[in-house]
Amino acid sequence: MKQTTEAILKAMTLEEKAALCAGLNMWMTKGYEHHGIPSIHMYDGTNGIRKTNSDEEIGISGQNIPATCYPTGSAIGSSWDVDLLHEIGVALGVEGQEMGVRLLLGPGVNMKRTPLGGRNFEYYSEDPVLTGELGAAFVNGLQNQGVGASVKHFACNNQEYEKMVTSSEVDERTLREIYLSAFERIVKKANPWTMMCSYNLVNGSYASENEHLLHDILREEWGYEGVMLSDWTAVNDRIRGLKAGLDIEMPGPAEYNTKAIVKAVQENRLDEAVLDQSVTRILELVRKTVETRNFENIQKIDYHELARKAASESMVLLKNDHHMLPIDKTKIDSMAVIGTFAKKPRIQGAGSAEVTPTRIDTPWEHLQHITNDEIKLSYADGYPSDDRVDEALILESVAIAAKSDMAVLFVGQPDYAESEMHDLKDIELPLHQVKLIEAVAAVQPNCIVVTSSGTALAMSTWAHQVSGIIHAWLSGQGSGQAIVDILFGRVNPSGKLSETFPAKLSDNPSHKRIRGENGKLFYREGLFVGYRYYDSKELIPQFAFGHGLSYTSFAYSDLKVAQQGNQVHVSCMVENTGDRFGKEVVQLYVHDEECKWVRPEKELKAFAKVALQPGEKKEVRFVLEERDFAYYNTKWNRWVAESGDFKIIIGSSSRDIRLQEKLFCTFEHGEITLHKFSLLTDWLSDAKAKAILESCFAEMNQHVTDQVVLDDGFVGFWGDFPAIKIIQMFGQSWLTDKSPDDVIAQLIAKFEQES
Amino acid sequence: MKQTTEAILKAMTLEEKAALCAGLNMWMTKGYEHHGIPSIHMYDGTNGIRKTNSDEEIGISGQNIPATCYPTGSAIGSSWDVDLLHEIGVALGVEGQEMGVRLLLGPGVNMKRTPLGGRNFEYYSEDPVLTGELGAAFVNGLQNQGVGASVKHFACNNQEYEKMVTSSEVDERTLREIYLSAFERIVKKANPWTMMCSYNLVNGSYASENEHLLHDILREEWGYEGVMLSDWTAVNDRIRGLKAGLDIEMPGPAEYNTKAIVKAVQENRLDEAVLDQSVTRILELVRKTVETRNFENIQKIDYHELARKAASESMVLLKNDHHMLPIDKTKIDSMAVIGTFAKKPRIQGAGSAEVTPTRIDTPWEHLQHITNDEIKLSYADGYPSDDRVDEALILESVAIAAKSDMAVLFVGQPDYAESEMHDLKDIELPLHQVKLIEAVAAVQPNCIVVTSSGTALAMSTWAHQVSGIIHAWLSGQGSGQAIVDILFGRVNPSGKLSETFPAKLSDNPSHKRIRGENGKLFYREGLFVGYRYYDSKELIPQFAFGHGLSYTSFAYSDLKVAQQGNQVHVSCMVENTGDRFGKEVVQLYVHDEECKWVRPEKELKAFAKVALQPGEKKEVRFVLEERDFAYYNTKWNRWVAESGDFKIIIGSSSRDIRLQEKLFCTFEHGEITLHKFSLLTDWLSDAKAKAILESCFAEMNQHVTDQVVLDDGFVGFWGDFPAIKIIQMFGQSWLTDKSPDDVIAQLIAKFEQES
Repeated sequence: MKQTTEAILKAMTLEEKAALCAGLNMWMTKGYEHHGIPSIHMYDGTNGIRKTNSDEEIGISGQNIPATCYPTGSAIGSSWDVDLLHEIGVALGVEGQEMGVRLLLGPGVNMKRTPLGGRNFEYYSEDPVLTGELGAAFVNGLQNQGVGASVKHFACNNQEYEKMVTSSEVDERTLREIYLSAFERIVKKANPWTMMCSYNLVNGSYASENEHLLHDILREEWGYEGVMLSDWTAVNDRIRGLKAGLDIEMPGPAEYNTKAIVKAVQENRLDEAVLDQSVTRILELVRKTVETRNFENIQKIDYHELARKAASESMVLLKNDHHMLPIDKTKIDSMAVIGTFAKKPRIQGAGSAEVTPTRIDTPWEHLQHITNDEIKLSYADGYPSDDRVDEALILESVAIAAKSDMAVLFVGQPDYAESEMHDLKDIELPLHQVKLIEAVAAVQPNCIVVTSSGTALAMSTWAHQVSGIIHAWLSGQGSGQAIVDILFGRVNPSGKLSETFPAKLSDNPSHKRIRGENGKLFYREGLFVGYRYYDSKELIPQFAFGHGLSYTSFAYSDLKVAQQGNQVHVSCMVENTGDRFGKEVVQLYVHDEECKWVRPEKELKAFAKVALQPGEKKEVRFVLEERDFAYYNTKWNRWVAESGDFKIIIGSSSRDIRLQEKLFCTFEHGEITLHKFSLLTDWLSDAKAKAILESCFAEMNQHVTDQVVLDDGFVGFWGDFPAIKIIQMFGQSWLTDKSPDDVIAQLIAKFEQES
Repeated sequence: MKQTTEAILKAMTLEEKAALCAGLNMWMTKGYEHHGIPSIHMYDGTNGIRKTNSDEEIGISGQNIPATCYPTGSAIGSSWDVDLLHEIGVALGVEGQEMGVRLLLGPGVNMKRTPLGGRNFEYYSEDPVLTGELGAAFVNGLQNQGVGASVKHFACNNQEYEKMVTSSEVDERTLREIYLSAFERIVKKANPWTMMCSYNLVNGSYASENEHLLHDILREEWGYEGVMLSDWTAVNDRIRGLKAGLDIEMPGPAEYNTKAIVKAVQENRLDEAVLDQSVTRILELVRKTVETRNFENIQKIDYHELARKAASESMVLLKNDHHMLPIDKTKIDSMAVIGTFAKKPRIQGAGSAEVTPTRIDTPWEHLQHITNDEIKLSYADGYPSDDRVDEALILESVAIAAKSDMAVLFVGQPDYAESEMHDLKDIELPLHQVKLIEAVAAVQPNCIVVTSSGTALAMSTWAHQVSGIIHAWLSGQGSGQAIVDILFGRVNPSGKLSETFPAKLSDNPSHKRIRGENGKLFYREGLFVGYRYYDSKELIPQFAFGHGLSYTSFAYSDLKVAQQGNQVHVSCMVENTGDRFGKEVVQLYVHDEECKWVRPEKELKAFAKVALQPGEKKEVRFVLEERDFAYYNTKWNRWVAESGDFKIIIGSSSRDIRLQEKLFCTFEHGEITLHKFSLLTDWLSDAKAKAILESCFAEMNQHVTDQVVLDDGFVGFWGDFPAIKIIQMFGQSWLTDKSPDDVIAQLIAKFEQES
């Protein structure tokens, strides 16, 4: 683009500008040759590039142009590995350039409010810090290579059920602390070129035209300068959307809305400057995608190898009784391999994120390869492709399991259960699979279960019956090898759950509350999403947030905490005390000891993935900012960190706490202020205010029978009464010429004068 | 009052009318001799009359004029006995007349949202049907004797913490189904002469001036014509309050507000007709209290005997292993009696409901009386009066327990824990008491625990260690004898828990959510209060709502259900299959099988307390109305009973279901209507609508590449998309001259035309 953006803008007609604010078709922006503005391509992809065969097709068929399929969001979220996310971002940038993609419609960073969310597999975690850190690394890697990201779905789209007509009703504090926090971190740390608004309404206003979200918070508070896209057909009122800051409507051409914009400007219902601002942002975006590409550092990337590595970092060893894993080839002569997922693995979910993979590794082929005829493998399908219970398949499996030295079952949510557009019905395995596991475990004590699903699974009915469980998530095209590598110890598992696995569905905080009524869905659990809920309810999950075993062991020591200015510096030592190389995810949580506002028991504020050779010991350091101690105060409409005691907690999971220390932290905090309804105890908490109130009561007592004497008994009982109401209660025969309002106003004036 | 109300009103000056809308002092209404309007007295009392020594005193000292102290609300709520409530109402009416009381400030019928509520002991239950039925019976009995009731606290005052400055934020459906429902039932069944507004705000507006509550719902919808009083100092803006329908401000004289009213009328900010309406209602109230007294049927009532009977109907036998109870005097030679509550029983809570009793029965005196030296009694204090742990007291108790044939421990929430103005800190017994129970149970297997508290207790740490538990609540001045009668089988216990006893505090639905922030307290659990929550979460409470054992056993049979018009008739047989007289509370719950809106798993809709001699069998009949099948639909702003399958469930408790049957019920229900955002599945659910939409797609498909074919795959994926959005997604190249809005509007018009 040779001209400056200003010059191009000036040369464009009103109609051209209005038209630029919608796509050219399903996948492209508009371009104007005579202005030197090219069209650019954007494609779906949270775990790979879903490029359709034609620009006119929505193409939710699974048959698009082949591209690398990486682990889905919940899988890669369990890697807790920011470097890996950056690396995948870079790889997708390179692959995207090869495929002519200028914008990749990801990452998806919504919070997992319910384990039933139909798109949960696309999202990283139930925690905003983990999500935000991983998302920022991914965006930086991608944009680094000249391909723009589109961080989605902004905001509060946490279920599929009637998402297009449902308003997520979320109180402001929860909105800030849970649902917007990851977006905020990514905006500030990675400056995504675009973001995508969600389908739903938020507190009564469509996300595509929500001024509070799109303008007040995103642009004004966070200073976002990139482009806001609509999700496909998420636009409701285009003029309202433009005013709120929605730059591009997708899909295009949406000619009716182009006309509506032109008309609105002509009729002075829309300031042309608002349109110009969107056009400017779009032009700047196009310029970036054309000019900022980084061709210098392009190296040939082995995409599939990266997909495999990513898969092996993502899988989580949930259970490993008696160190049953890794499998020692020298001790096993035969193995029963059960379940069709061994031959047809589930590597991703369905819907707009479904990539057509370049190849698929299967566990079966890699099992054959690694066992190399030293172990005799037998195979059974295990379960049908639908939700029937088929006893014959179970009997067949039991037969081969009974004859083998061990059994490995490949089970999980069936294909049809996990897809965009539909929430899951349950988090239990299908009934047949549960019966299968129980039957096999009954005849074969050496039983390992490999589970595949994009969201939490409930395992309490059968987990205690088997020796080991590996949760493989939906880990992309390299997952077949990754599973086998972990089974046989070629890879030491290092994934940690990015979401809580509850014992049963009804344990989860949004249970019975994911379907809106009359177009409203109340986020009733508030802040208590994920582990925040299980902590507050003292409820033991099947597997906790942050949980994940290793084939080696780690010792924690030497926790040091110290405040320096508004920062808190934390360090500790972590040592590999086992006999093999491994990686540990060190998790730092903060607990507020004394805040008057309800806070979660603890919140993740930082983490680090540390690689350690056997016997190696490393120092891990964290720097916490004031914000890491803050909650969103809706009285003052800002983040507030109150001075006081905090606990710094270091865990190997959210329920496996290794070190903790209390620290008094000092942050700037407001003075006492008195208002009409200040409580008796508020007045008594300040010496000056107390004296003023006491002299008022002394005067009042001269006129009344039932006197106010501020002794322990009185204050104990009436402490929570506002002073004005005490005057109203006891001062009736004194209040002849004045009202309680007058009296209290005078007292406050006096206090403020003296302060 | 000789003159008609109209005539009096006409004769009164503006100043006199304004002044009548506040009390004369702490406890009286104003009177005007020259108009023939007397002053009337009103006094506190939910479980008795708290008449102060002077009309100028608030008198929260416990030292007032002696009166009968009946079981507190949560105790009497556990009687499930409407006849008993009526009888107590009558008795309080008679006693009130003797004491010169014209209005009794009760009953308290707020829902128990949290077991920590400081005034929970005053309220009946966590269920609106149980509360409403009991409250209506009480009010009818009381008013029957010419003493007016004041049903309180209207509404949503469910905790004490900062209640005067906190807004209960409750969605409309929850408000209707949970928090207002008992009030509604009492208004409609008992027409209370007065009601009392609460201190708190409801959804941002003070209850004392909340137009939605006081006017729209109470007066307009329910047709309430009685007087609304303010709770003491609950008035905020007097003019707004009058407009909303708050008739009397308490306490008086509130001269500043009398002036404010006069001024507002003079300045045309308040229509004098509004004032006249309140004055008319107040005059009618005074007239009723003066003229409607029923002197004819007054009989001498043995108040204390009634208090004793009420106490024995209220207590709940929670646990009785090996039929340890009732105590067989012939088998026991010695008994250790442990705990100061045996000698100084807790009979009520503190605050405005604290009655100065006429006498107090103690368990100790009645134990002495009943054992009559046939059983050797020994006694130990057991625990200190504060929250220390005192090992010496435990050792002393263990010593006497070890030497005796059995031990009875009298424990419970200490006095200081339960009071108006403060919420409880915990529902566990004090640590010392838990240690005491464990230590005594370790040496004495025959161990009975009698617990006293006005709200649920958590017992999971120790309940399994003892043989029997009687929950005695705070059961008034007759509770001492009632406990002993139950211990020895002179009374067969028949109380059933009026609230859920959770295993631990954090199990309760409002855990961490009873303190407001920035003046707002969100009722996040919504409908899921009490057993509704434990059901939905599949959470096992320590003792379920409706639970209570008997010394005999009951068999249920012959459930019959049939719809007749808009009513459903239900009957079943209940038989006493044991060998002693007993009473059973038969509980009827309704479960909605198919409502699209989330409903509680089951809801109590009716109950009956049946007295049966050994071997006796009775038929129990219930008639359910349409409303008993309805939920409050916020789309149509009315109660809706949808035709469909319901389950009629008969239980001996909410978790001890004895009979159930499914029934298809037919209620009037709306036709399908289509709107802008109707989903694809909505359109396809009606043949005519489907045809219209299909012809639209057929036309569209001629202009687009990616065609819409409504096969199973398409509908399966896109079913939850609004039709308008499908047109927007697939029809872009067709939508040149028209918008999706235009298209859908035409389709709807066509549908409506053809319908």
